[in-house]
Amino acid sequence: MIGVGVMGAEHARILAFRTPGACLQSIYDADASRSKALAAETSAPSVAGDPLALVHDPDVDAVVIASPDATHHDLVIACLEARKPVLCEKPLAATESECHRIVEAETAIGRRLVQVGYMRRFDPWYVDLKTRLESKRLGAPLMLHCAHRNVSAPTWFDSRMSITNSAVHEFDIVRWLLSDDLVGVQTFQPGVRQPNAAGAPVFLVLETERGRLVDIEVHVNAAYGYDVVAELVCEKGTLSLGSNTLSTIKSERASGAPFPEDWRGRFAEAYRLQMQAWIRSAAGGTPGGSSAWDGYMAAIVANAALRSLERKGRAAIERPARPTLYD
Amino acid sequence: MIGVGVMGAEHARILAFRTPGACLQSIYDADASRSKALAAETSAPSVAGDPLALVHDPDVDAVVIASPDATHHDLVIACLEARKPVLCEKPLAATESECHRIVEAETAIGRRLVQVGYMRRFDPWYVDLKTRLESKRLGAPLMLHCAHRNVSAPTWFDSRMSITNSAVHEFDIVRWLLSDDLVGVQTFQPGVRQPNAAGAPVFLVLETERGRLVDIEVHVNAAYGYDVVAELVCEKGTLSLGSNTLSTIKSERASGAPFPEDWRGRFAEAYRLQMQAWIRSAAGGTPGGSSAWDGYMAAIVANAALRSLERKGRAAIERPARPTLYD
Amino acid sequence: MIGVGVMGAEHARILAFRTPGACLQSIYDADASRSKALAAETSAPSVAGDPLALVHDPDVDAVVIASPDATHHDLVIACLEARKPVLCEKPLAATESECHRIVEAETAIGRRLVQVGYMRRFDPWYVDLKTRLESKRLGAPLMLHCAHRNVSAPTWFDSRMSITNSAVHEFDIVRWLLSDDLVGVQTFQPGVRQPNAAGAPVFLVLETERGRLVDIEVHVNAAYGYDVVAELVCEKGTLSLGSNTLSTIKSERASGAPFPEDWRGRFAEAYRLQMQAWIRSAAGGTPGGSSAWDGYMAAIVANAALRSLERKGRAAIERPARPTLYD
Amino acid sequence: MIGVGVMGAEHARILAFRTPGACLQSIYDADASRSKALAAETSAPSVAGDPLALVHDPDVDAVVIASPDATHHDLVIACLEARKPVLCEKPLAATESECHRIVEAETAIGRRLVQVGYMRRFDPWYVDLKTRLESKRLGAPLMLHCAHRNVSAPTWFDSRMSITNSAVHEFDIVRWLLSDDLVGVQTFQPGVRQPNAAGAPVFLVLETERGRLVDIEVHVNAAYGYDVVAELVCEKGTLSLGSNTLSTIKSERASGAPFPEDWRGRFAEAYRLQMQAWIRSAAGGTPGGSSAWDGYMAAIVANAALRSLERKGRAAIERPARPTLYD
Repeated sequence: MIGVGVMGAEHARILAFRTPGACLQSIYDADASRSKALAAETSAPSVAGDPLALVHDPDVDAVVIASPDATHHDLVIACLEARKPVLCEKPLAATESECHRIVEAETAIGRRLVQVGYMRRFDPWYVDLKTRLESKRLGAPLMLHCAHRNVSAPTWFDSRMSITNSAVHEFDIVRWLLSDDLVGVQTFQPGVRQPNAAGAPVFLVLETERGRLVDIEVHVNAAYGYDVVAELVCEKGTLSLGSNTLSTIKSERASGAPFPEDWRGRFAEAYRLQMQAWIRSAAGGTPGGSSAWDGYMAAIVANAALRSLERKGRAAIERPARPTLYD
Repeated sequence: MIGVGVMGAEHARILAFRTPGACLQSIYDADASRSKALAAETSAPSVAGDPLALVHDPDVDAVVIASPDATHHDLVIACLEARKPVLCEKPLAATESECHRIVEAETAIGRRLVQVGYMRRFDPWYVDLKTRLESKRLGAPLMLHCAHRNVSAPTWFDSRMSITNSAVHEFDIVRWLLSDDLVGVQTFQPGVRQPNAAGAPVFLVLETERGRLVDIEVHVNAAYGYDVVAELVCEKGTLSLGSNTLSTIKSERASGAPFPEDWRGRFAEAYRLQMQAWIRSAAGGTPGGSSAWDGYMAAIVANAALRSLERKGRAAIERPARPTLYD
Repeated sequence: MIGVGVMGAEHARILAFRTPGACLQSIYDADASRSKALAAETSAPSVAGDPLALVHDPDVDAVVIASPDATHHDLVIACLEARKPVLCEKPLAATESECHRIVEAETAIGRRLVQVGYMRRFDPWYVDLKTRLESKRLGAPLMLHCAHRNVSAPTWFDSRMSITNSAVHEFDIVRWLLSDDLVGVQTFQPGVRQPNAAGAPVFLVLETERGRLVDIEVHVNAAYGYDVVAELVCEKGTLSLGSNTLSTIKSERASGAPFPEDWRGRFAEAYRLQMQAWIRSAAGGTPGGSSAWDGYMAAIVANAALRSLERKGRAAIERPARPTLYD
Repeated sequence: MIGVGVMGAEHARILAFRTPGACLQSIYDADASRSKALAAETSAPSVAGDPLALVHDPDVDAVVIASPDATHHDLVIACLEARKPVLCEKPLAATESECHRIVEAETAIGRRLVQVGYMRRFDPWYVDLKTRLESKRLGAPLMLHCAHRNVSAPTWFDSRMSITNSAVHEFDIVRWLLSDDLVGVQTFQPGVRQPNAAGAPVFLVLETERGRLVDIEVHVNAAYGYDVVAELVCEKGTLSLGSNTLSTIKSERASGAPFPEDWRGRFAEAYRLQMQAWIRSAAGGTPGGSSAWDGYMAAIVANAALRSLERKGRAAIERPARPTLYD
């Protein structure tokens, strides 16, 4: 484990306590007190003083990266050089060109070693949606309406970050769900608040290579709860993400179902299943989930959405040729 | 209109403003200021000083009774003697034997003139349930689970009143919905609070002539809202009353649908449609809805439920032979 | 009643049987057998041989127009000249300039006599949404997501008609719901099917004068049912149209709620309440509902949406100055 | 693992593939081909030829029993004698007196080693219900409405089995959910079908020690799906089990959510979490979940319900004094 802030510590606990076949061997964090505390909590035998030392530790078979975005590129490249499977938290790297270099490095090796932590691909709700879509009982998909809502965002979380940090989850899951690529994007913003202000919602309309229309609301200050919505409109009907409702409550003049406070209440199972699948593939198979190529594509789409945000109007999404490694 | 308290005034307004073909001619209330105020509001031409005078007024073609329960018997009998159609708020009369005398009087006349205000028979939600049941797509009904919940009840509203005032609505609608009669009843009470205390819930298990099992929760202090629930369990599936939800709301960590405060928010349309149907039948047809016989049966079932409440154990429901007038 | 096809006959029945205070006096239809049959069914005393004769008939106090769109302008102008209140089915007229002339004529008279049949303004579900929005409990509105879905459309119903015939309902209700005007529109189409083909869905993104973002899916071949969806995203939560669910059903491995086949199952109550309100206003008040100005605005927005459909990209919505009559 | 039929094989796979810390060491089944096949599938190192040999195998630290009910008593006693933690599928034993002997044996040892496989106590939906109930936000519980519905049952599955095999799950979960004991039960049956016929529904009304009223519908031929329902009626509102809905679907004139075919689609997570918790406690703690005492109580309540089924009327539930081991 490299990087054990909120997200990384969660990964470490999943590894240590909830993933059969996994052994949490070594932990690194820039803040050594954090790595030590977590090693104690999880009985991990080693605390690394340097992330590259951890990568090269012969007792380490595979690496999870959850350190700051700016460190991702170098660490993933190091894992590739060491030929070790790596699960890298999203984004794959801080910039589109860094993502590209990772794709090139992995392609040169000729073997897939990188998985990006777009965990929704393992979420039972999304998996069910895809299974039903692919059963073709409702015909071909025509449109997809999505919303991603958080309770609140820090003041420094502006509209650009809504795209690069939140909407990227949608870009990845939409490509996966539809087995399709994104070719154009147009970014809208309600003019009610200052454009690009912290927490101002963003609304994106995307086209896919096969002609589907996708719209995405990203609303990081939605106040009422953590809520992820998706409705696939197909030729004969629609499919929507069910809700993860444990209890329904009738009280104070309303019948209701609670929302989680944040992603932990919504995607805990997705993170666990992602880790379980990754550990299995690390023991000797091809990683499932989001590939380095997918991580690169998410960065490309995000950059196009940012261009549209700045210049208004549609931005074309230019995709380089996909190496056969990712077929 | 005889009796214009909360319920009667509502009937008067429906008659005056929302029922084509109706003309609100005369109003009586024991409190003359109330009848005068309502006559002014509804432009009713006459205020009666005596309820029997109203019944015999040649300008009055049909009578709605919403005066206190104790007055129902005499007023309904007067309407029968005057051969005028009468819509009597439930209960038909204050006692089972009074109900019986009304049935005898109407039978002697040989023509149905009495309708009892069990308005649920006109509620679009219940009507849809019955229509779907009778389509037989789900097979024969086996069980019916009901709940009747009010926000709160006055301190004098004890368990006996939960049966005689609230559960009677269920007794009537169950007989109508299932086209079946009730033959046995057993009354239960949670022992959490004082038995028979104001607002203590009552739970009834009833058997029908054709072998269906019906359970009814009556909870007049349910606190959270006015809520009427029914689930029909049939051989191939279940049918439940849909909810009258105008808006759904996501706020404060929950997704919810509001409950009405009381029956007005739930059954306004049932009252309007009941009046519309009654006015049409009063102009020259047989009344639909709940007959004097049905009102009598509700009283018989309520008395059996009261016996079971007192003595514990099952009470048989003894039904006299039904006059052919009510076939 | 002028024009008694499917829609007009429905209006005539509402007038005759379900609207207190209304008297259906005269019926005209280009097909005389149709007007005669309906006069017989509704006991209307007169059948007109000419629509203008009906307008000028001294026994006719107010006129409902449900004849073909191309006839609306001349008939509404005739009603204005006769100073008779008129409820005109949408659209107000066949072209934007015809709508404009009606607005000018009414402005010249200086009194509002025209109501356009955008009946959603009377739908209890939309009314509840607006009431809750205006209570400000959820803060200011930011975005509005809408969908309008029909089971199927005739082969001649192309994308242009999806805008001019279906989306106009949305344009009107959005302006009313938000008390705001529309200033820009961009029309998208999934490229899955032939663009502009019969039944190809249309997706519109609109901006309002006060900065709200509105998106509308119009899908006239949605196959699964008649479904109208609206979700208002506000600062503190969201408000959605509740569903008009009479029964919920558990059968064949699913729990479900039925959709109506068409608008009759969804908006019957809206049509009834629209007529009731119009009849009251016709007896001596200002019409509520959608005004001639609103009908004109719907035409202007529809034309902008058509321009965007043809040329791609955003179309500005140019609004003329609003006469004070419509404040 | 002792017994690897449908249920036991599922347990074995959970142990082998989904439970960190567990090692599936040895498998016994009366049908040796079955144990061998499963050992191959799960890489279990040993196949036992005799269940008692497995219990006494020094490489076996803890035992899961999923063999036929009649074998439970002897095997659990053997585990107790060997001082090995045992997770025994429900029922704890085939008869009430066998259950009693197990309780006596465990009490004599003075240490809890037995857990009964009432897995609902680990189901996230039930756990959430209990957590919310115990937060006391809705006040004290008054009533609990339950339903347990299967798609279909074999012809030999009569009303007695509905009680001893299905309703026992409810008896256990109700005691756990309410932290209360059951003191009386009355069994009803709709008379629509032959009483006690295969698949005839059973309806039970139970009273708890602290005065709550519980009703349970057991309907093993419900046809439409596998469905487990619970609604807790509290002083200030109600709490219901949420649904495990992955996708919602709009198609063919209905909006719906699918039901699972059987318990695997509903309780897979409960089984996994039960095993995970048991493995942790087996490594050195007191087992959570349902104890031998709870298993004994389920048998006592089931017997009372059977008496009520036969003799009609209420049956008292006689509870022996609880050993302090189970406090």
